[in-house]
Order: sequence, then C-alpha cells, then structure tokens
Amino acid sequence: MLVYEGKAKRLYETENPDVLRVEYKDSATAFNGVKKAEIEGKGQLNNEISSLIFQRLEEKGVESHFIRKISGREQLVRRVSIIPLEVVVRNVVAGSLAKRLGIEEGTAIKEPIVEFYYKNDEFGDPLITEDHVLLLGIASLEELQFLRKQALIVNESLQALFSEVGVRLVDFKLEFGRDQEGKILLADEISPDTCRLWDRETDRKLDKDVFRRDLGSLTEVYQEILNRLRGDISHV
Amino acid sequence: MLVYEGKAKRLYETENPDVLRVEYKDSATAFNGVKKAEIEGKGQLNNEISSLIFQRLEEKGVESHFIRKISGREQLVRRVSIIPLEVVVRNVVAGSLAKRLGIEEGTAIKEPIVEFYYKNDEFGDPLITEDHVLLLGIASLEELQFLRKQALIVNESLQALFSEVGVRLVDFKLEFGRDQEGKILLADEISPDTCRLWDRETDRKLDKDVFRRDLGSLTEVYQEILNRLRGDISHV
Repeated sequence: MLVYEGKAKRLYETENPDVLRVEYKDSATAFNGVKKAEIEGKGQLNNEISSLIFQRLEEKGVESHFIRKISGREQLVRRVSIIPLEVVVRNVVAGSLAKRLGIEEGTAIKEPIVEFYYKNDEFGDPLITEDHVLLLGIASLEELQFLRKQALIVNESLQALFSEVGVRLVDFKLEFGRDQEGKILLADEISPDTCRLWDRETDRKLDKDVFRRDLGSLTEVYQEILNRLRGDISHV
Repeated sequence: MLVYEGKAKRLYETENPDVLRVEYKDSATAFNGVKKAEIEGKGQLNNEISSLIFQRLEEKGVESHFIRKISGREQLVRRVSIIPLEVVVRNVVAGSLAKRLGIEEGTAIKEPIVEFYYKNDEFGDPLITEDHVLLLGIASLEELQFLRKQALIVNESLQALFSEVGVRLVDFKLEFGRDQEGKILLADEISPDTCRLWDRETDRKLDKDVFRRDLGSLTEVYQEILNRLRGDISHV
C-alpha cells in the first residue's frame, strides 16, 4: 500500500510494519516544484547511488534507515517519522547561500556550515534558526545538537568518499526521522539530487544543478558519479 | 557636512569628529523601500520617542550612541561604524516570523528569540545564522554573543518601560556600531518605526504596521506612544 508519494520517491508498506519499500521515480523537480521533467533512468541511478552511499556510511559507523537495495529502482528502509527539517551542510559557497549573502559561488568555507530549513512547501522551505525549530516544536535542543553533530560526521565521511573519486563535495541536504522508539536515524536519500558535486579538476557540475540550470544531460552526469563511486569500490 | 542619508534619517558631521548630528526625516518606507510616503511630523515624533527611550535605557545602564536631543527633529550621537546587522528580538510572533513559520500572529513566545538579519537592501535584508555572520566577517563570535546579550538586556528594559504604559512589546530591531576603539554601542533609533507595539487591552497596533498595512494615521499612533511614555515619566 502506498504510504507517501513525494516529488522523487514513493513509499510503500511491506509485510513488516517497521519496513517500507522505497521506489525512486524518474521525476526531476526544482525551485519548489516549479520546474519539472520526467527523465528516464534517473530513478534507477539515484537508487543505486543512494544505496551505495548509505552502505558506505554504515561501514563508517553512520546508521541510517537504509536496509538494502531490492531492485533497480527500489530499496527497503526502516520506517521512520520524518523530522520536517532539511539539514544542509556546506563546504563551499553555492546556490541559495551565494544569493543570500552575495558571496561568489565557489568560495571555500573554512569550517563547514550547518543550516536548518523548515521542510514546508507552502512556505518555500525557509531557512530557520535553532530558536525557530524550538518554537515550532519540531525537535528538542538535544535533538538539534545531535542532528548538527551527525550532519558533520556524515560530511566527513562523504568528503572522504567523493575526494577518492575526484569529486568536490560542495554541499548537501540530509533528512532525519524518528523510529518507533524515538531514535533518530539518517533517512531520505543521498544522491546528486541532494548534493552539489563538482569535478575536482574542472569544476564541472555533476549534480542536479545540471537540471536546474540547463547544463546538459542529467543522466549522463549521474551515471558519471555512479561509475566513479563504483570504480572506487572495486579498488577496495 | 552630510555623511550619510538613509531612508528615515540624515547624518551630519559636527565640529567634533566623534559626534554626529542626526536629522529625522518625515519619510515613511516599508517593504524594502517599495512603499513610501512623506508624513509630516513623523520625523519629530521619532526623534522625541527615540531620545526618550535612549535616555531611559541609559538610566538602566544600557549605553548607546545617543548624546542628547538638540531640536525637534535633531539629536547628537557618538560617531560609530554601523555593523551591518539588524538584531531582532521577538516576544510575540508577528510579521515576517509569522509568514516564515506559518504561526499565527499574536502567538506568545516563551523565551524571547534573537535573530540576525543581514543589513543589505540589494539582498532584501535576509535572515542569516551566526555561521553566516562569521563567514561574512561582519562580527566575531565574541561580538555576536555580546550583541545577543545586549539585545536581551534592552528587551527587558523596553518591556518594563512599555508595560508601565499599557503597551505590549511584540518585537523590535536594533542596530549596533563600533566606536573608534572598537567598542560596540547600541545605535540607530528605537521608535515605532523599529518596534511592534500593541495596546495591551485592545491589541491595537501603535507602530509602523499602521503604515505598512494601511490601518489609519501613523502620526496619531506615534503621538499616542509619545504621550504615554511622557505621561509615564511625569509619574516618576
């Protein structure tokens, strides 16, 4: 039974009430859904990339909702209740931060920055402060501190992972959820839809900005990321 | 000599290089200058209210750039270099916060919230986090902590001051500057242009929202605030 349909994924119940099946869709959306397209192969690429990344994170001790990939565009995950926050980590100025502060895209950030956005399409996923999170009652102060810490741990792991394959991790968005016992787990997906990934040598964009900014074939660059990540794994 | 002209004030040099003369203009602006009007008497009212408030803050031990009022629409202030931050304190949800979070205007906030906005008309004075302030190099972490602390001290003083005259201090915006020695002083103005002030009994708006939202005569409600504050002082 379909439990939830988002812009990029569908969630289905399974026989196990604690387990959901995720189906990655071929839909690409940007600018809060204003720009959209169906791009054949995108769902499968993101499922493969995200599965691979969640596995690598688990090997490094970062727990997530991910259980296993079960088909080209499907994976099984633990059922969690998503915390309505987009937790963004930034290593390089890009996108909305460049616009907000008037700092040139590509400017390095010395200490990674963690930001919280309120996951609410109606209000355009606004940036919010920790005080706002507490006022909304979305998370406790302890949970916020945990989210920030986890986000920075994920950043270190992902930076290492991408660095090995010649990719600069510019920024990325994480989502977290609470399981039945209230334990917070990394959730959603980690893919070129949710990360900014630049080729280290050429600064070529290997992520959803290719779609947002009409820079060429999305599946070509997503495939490039998958190939690089797979190539790296075959070295191990 | 004119040193600076803003939306609501002009700053002139005086014979003393450390002292500026502020002239309050009759201009009213809102929505980053999109809505504007000339309102006779506004400058004088804000000069009188702001002078009175800075004096009261000084009596309570909060230093500011204010030296003294020298005419209906003029005051002398210490020369400071303004830190490009709007430091906002909120006791009740209103205005942009209500819109950002989708919380009803008038909702009480348990612990006052301090926010930083980047004073930059080109970018629409965006909300920024403390990390962003550090990235922009606008203030150090120690200075940010000082600004936050000062803002909360000002909030306590202003809440007491307005409470005595039947007014609810909903929120307000402060600006700070550095003097020649780098010492941070409260600056700019504190007036119904920079505070949300609601009548405690009726919730009637006694501030610039009257202009922003076309709720009647701005000078009438500013005069009401001045009268109440003066009446209060005559009780002392």
